[in-house]
Amino acid sequence: MSATNSVNGTATTEVLKSPFLKAIVQQIRGQDSYGVYRNWSDELILKPFVVTKQKKREISVEGEVDPITVARIMAFYRAVAARIEQETGLLSQVVVDLSHEGFGWALVFSGRLLLAVKTLRDAHRFGFESLEKVAEEGEKLVQKGMELAQRFPEVGRL
Amino acid sequence: MSATNSVNGTATTEVLKSPFLKAIVQQIRGQDSYGVYRNWSDELILKPFVVTKQKKREISVEGEVDPITVARIMAFYRAVAARIEQETGLLSQVVVDLSHEGFGWALVFSGRLLLAVKTLRDAHRFGFESLEKVAEEGEKLVQKGMELAQRFPEVGRL
Repeated sequence: MSATNSVNGTATTEVLKSPFLKAIVQQIRGQDSYGVYRNWSDELILKPFVVTKQKKREISVEGEVDPITVARIMAFYRAVAARIEQETGLLSQVVVDLSHEGFGWALVFSGRLLLAVKTLRDAHRFGFESLEKVAEEGEKLVQKGMELAQRFPEVGRL
Repeated sequence: MSATNSVNGTATTEVLKSPFLKAIVQQIRGQDSYGVYRNWSDELILKPFVVTKQKKREISVEGEVDPITVARIMAFYRAVAARIEQETGLLSQVVVDLSHEGFGWALVFSGRLLLAVKTLRDAHRFGFESLEKVAEEGEKLVQKGMELAQRFPEVGRL
């Protein structure tokens, strides 16, 4: 969508090996009952997660959040849940609650333990500066969630 | 709305003293910026929380959940949060997330601890058999939440 998120560089090929980005791709392919993404490369599937600052300014925050954007936010947090499950074995639920104005919450929880909590605002503009940033932010949430799961195993299994 | 939920009996006057029902009334009066409920008795404010089995059958679960019903669900769970706060001092957040089909979650959390978790279905029909039942179900959630807050104080304060 923008000139800055090249998807052909070798750096990008490297970043695609990130377990977090792989988890996102898996979420999207797993939900793809109509085969829309069957012939898409991973790069292409991940591309909409990159929204540069300039692009963000161009997206209006008026009205409802686009269902495709909501699906993207869900995929991101489902990937967080999936990665935590891979690492800790804890199955978790994902709840994304958005008001019509794009404000809300993204929650990942297992038992009575909240593994990830994020307040969302201007959800219409959900996205990251680069694929590296997607991987970094996602992995940060995963690490924090894993840490909590290990610290309070009893709460996670309630 | 129905012949069975009399609001004049002495039993009802007794049940209105329930701390949970008081908390619901407080939530609704507190949000009443236009003064709609200013001259309403507590009984009248609480009446829509009573939905008999027969009444439930009459409510269609097609389409979006009525915004007034959503507000009622929010008031119920906000009252749970308020009662837990009264008892434990823990401030909490309430998230109600409903799909268009009336399925979803009601969550009350503080820090990283989920004090109340409820899956909702047929949310269009949200309500209880009697005011006693509203008080009982609410207080049950409050007790469970308090118990968790006392058992895992560290998680609730994260």
